[in-house]
Amino acid sequence: MKPGIPKGTRDFLPEQVAKREYIFSVIKRAFQTYGYVPIETPVMENLKTLTGKYGDEGDKLLFKILNNGDFLAKADKQALEDGNSSGLISSIADRGLRYDLTVPFARFVTMHQNDLSFPFKRYQIQQVWRADRPQKGRYREFYQCDADVVGSDSLHYEAELVQLFDQVYATLGIKVSIKINNRKVLYGIAESQGIADQFMAMTIAMDKLDKIGREKVIEEMTKNHIPEAAAHQVMDILSCKDLDEMQEKIASSSIGVAGIEELRTFHRFIDTSELSNELSFDPSLARGLNYYTGCIFEVAAKDVAIGSIGGGGRYDDLTSVFGLKGVSGVGISFGFARIYDVMEELKLFPEDISRTLDILILSFDIDSHGYGFRLMTQLRKAGVSADLYPKPIKMQKQMKYANNIKVPYTIVIGSEEMTSGVLSLKDMNSGEQNKVTVNQLIEKFTNI
Amino acid sequence: MKPGIPKGTRDFLPEQVAKREYIFSVIKRAFQTYGYVPIETPVMENLKTLTGKYGDEGDKLLFKILNNGDFLAKADKQALEDGNSSGLISSIADRGLRYDLTVPFARFVTMHQNDLSFPFKRYQIQQVWRADRPQKGRYREFYQCDADVVGSDSLHYEAELVQLFDQVYATLGIKVSIKINNRKVLYGIAESQGIADQFMAMTIAMDKLDKIGREKVIEEMTKNHIPEAAAHQVMDILSCKDLDEMQEKIASSSIGVAGIEELRTFHRFIDTSELSNELSFDPSLARGLNYYTGCIFEVAAKDVAIGSIGGGGRYDDLTSVFGLKGVSGVGISFGFARIYDVMEELKLFPEDISRTLDILILSFDIDSHGYGFRLMTQLRKAGVSADLYPKPIKMQKQMKYANNIKVPYTIVIGSEEMTSGVLSLKDMNSGEQNKVTVNQLIEKFTNI
Repeated sequence: MKPGIPKGTRDFLPEQVAKREYIFSVIKRAFQTYGYVPIETPVMENLKTLTGKYGDEGDKLLFKILNNGDFLAKADKQALEDGNSSGLISSIADRGLRYDLTVPFARFVTMHQNDLSFPFKRYQIQQVWRADRPQKGRYREFYQCDADVVGSDSLHYEAELVQLFDQVYATLGIKVSIKINNRKVLYGIAESQGIADQFMAMTIAMDKLDKIGREKVIEEMTKNHIPEAAAHQVMDILSCKDLDEMQEKIASSSIGVAGIEELRTFHRFIDTSELSNELSFDPSLARGLNYYTGCIFEVAAKDVAIGSIGGGGRYDDLTSVFGLKGVSGVGISFGFARIYDVMEELKLFPEDISRTLDILILSFDIDSHGYGFRLMTQLRKAGVSADLYPKPIKMQKQMKYANNIKVPYTIVIGSEEMTSGVLSLKDMNSGEQNKVTVNQLIEKFTNI
Repeated sequence: MKPGIPKGTRDFLPEQVAKREYIFSVIKRAFQTYGYVPIETPVMENLKTLTGKYGDEGDKLLFKILNNGDFLAKADKQALEDGNSSGLISSIADRGLRYDLTVPFARFVTMHQNDLSFPFKRYQIQQVWRADRPQKGRYREFYQCDADVVGSDSLHYEAELVQLFDQVYATLGIKVSIKINNRKVLYGIAESQGIADQFMAMTIAMDKLDKIGREKVIEEMTKNHIPEAAAHQVMDILSCKDLDEMQEKIASSSIGVAGIEELRTFHRFIDTSELSNELSFDPSLARGLNYYTGCIFEVAAKDVAIGSIGGGGRYDDLTSVFGLKGVSGVGISFGFARIYDVMEELKLFPEDISRTLDILILSFDIDSHGYGFRLMTQLRKAGVSADLYPKPIKMQKQMKYANNIKVPYTIVIGSEEMTSGVLSLKDMNSGEQNKVTVNQLIEKFTNI
């Protein structure tokens, strides 16, 4: 049997795990500095928690888990007879794999509302699964890294989440531009042009501006019953980058003006001169997700054309579907897979990131192998990462292994070393050798 | 809709996540000090990778993932007609959830053999899923923490894995007894009593000695065609705790003597006086798993009656089922869920383990809230974990929140603080207040 793994999934070798852990650790440290606490939810959710939350297309992309035991006994007879696969699912699969972290979080907040103090600031770094067609950079199993605050509508959280984005990308060494907009301003644009009823069609078309250009966006709008004059007006308004100017243009919409006011409050909190990256108001930023109701953000890498590597926004009613009403929230998500790719492309990972072993001990015979074992034990006890080649085979073969695993230092144990207790530490990069005692070794490698 | 989660799964609140992370970090650090490197494998494996590896009972406990799209189109017509659920599975589910980390690791080694340097020392800390009946302490989703070396038969690894067990449990503060035996010695006992053909029946019965006692074990053996005299002889031999004595008793079995020799070599490496916990030879230790072929270990907590909290052993042929022959390996597994329970019961988790926030800032009005936001920004930039209550509401309510989230320090911003720049830091445990500047604050909280 030739082994394989499911399409769209991946094994991770040690160096890849180390690089991933590095990104996670930078993000986690920032989350904690900003007062966010971690939660974890199960990989499996009840299917009824998931279905209907991601649109029809999303429902198709859910991975469903077949009920255990005699699942056919409770199968929908009619659906079976009709060969109706999608109609059969709910009777033979009660559970599905998590599709994102947002819906499980809303479910979590509702279930645990009495154990939480609000505002509740949580972060969550876990995998999600989508049965999308795999392609370059798109997998069926991938990590999401989310931070959300629920239970407060203070704009101070919008400001701190932008600071958090700024700090994480600066720490990772990725230059980004951060864009902010407000869904209420977008609604104000629609309302001021008399196309409030076509608000969704307008935002969906607008979202494609970067990809298809102004003319095609206008074309799509008119196809969706937006008068051509209004479509042109909308596009003109989108080009204004100044809050005062925008306020004038959408003055007739009280919702739109409220959105402008939110952006002003946001700017009172944040001091853009203290950010490492540029932050700009972009009225053409729409973000597809329907549940956003206030400020929205998006982050793009400056030196790699890879699309958005982070985003988020304010939502007013995420938990009501589970029965908890009136909980406003705001959250962001780091585009982990793309961040990884950007770091690889720009060579931003620290050198030797996967190196955890400091010293490999090599030996000539059974006696020196035993001596090496005791030396290794002593080093490990002191917290030095050390290893011993398993057998005293030909020195050349042992050295080859040392090179393969890229260990930075080796020590060869011979009769001289056993007699004197003085060891010869070889730097595998420079080839340089130095005489050291065990205590000197421990001092050197625990002071790094 | 009242939300819930699947039976046998759990949500984890921040304190639980912090406690789990603490155990993982101790184990990971030890793995790395001992030269093990991390890998990760997908949550989903091809079902054919998993089926047949865990016995018939195991196959039933696998979670299977329903194929996406029109899965009925390729369903086995006969099985459908017969209402044969188990016969239908292979035609409608190509994938399943990981049941343990050992089989995916064997699959990984086979697939990536050309990218690995042998001996390959890997650790893996990931979740697994089993559709077992949930009960106290047994879940359907749980973590496994494994370390394995493949590609060497050196007994030095058995010795270092026992040292690793010893060090991890000592670091966690759990007193344990570590038992060692060798499957070849067990075979030698069977062979010397002329019951080599009943070897499996003998070990299965023996494994229950602690639970059911000597008489019942003998009863089970005789039921399984082991002559009563031989069964009594086996039980007598099991009581000898000394390698010399054991060697005499099984001298007629060359395999048994080879097992004794392995245990002697193991003891030449390890210096038991340097271990923090006791290590003993226990010939009645059998460990159920069939794939073990050499030394086997088991770890039990001394102060809590909870069964095994760790175990492992040598296997000679794990990867051959995937086509890679002649790769000897040895590995251990930490019983993570039980370790967690022991730590809880003995109160071994460090105090304040879930505390990541140092300071909560409170404010009286919009001006002081804005001042607080800038102070918070400054503290976070310096690496101090700080937060700000979202709105300048009644001070009593803000203080209640500070108590609820158990933050150790608060700072209230008033007009005096804004004028002087001197802040009043309140220790929430003692109630003590101290005047500090921002720089003093940063120094205090980055030196902890």
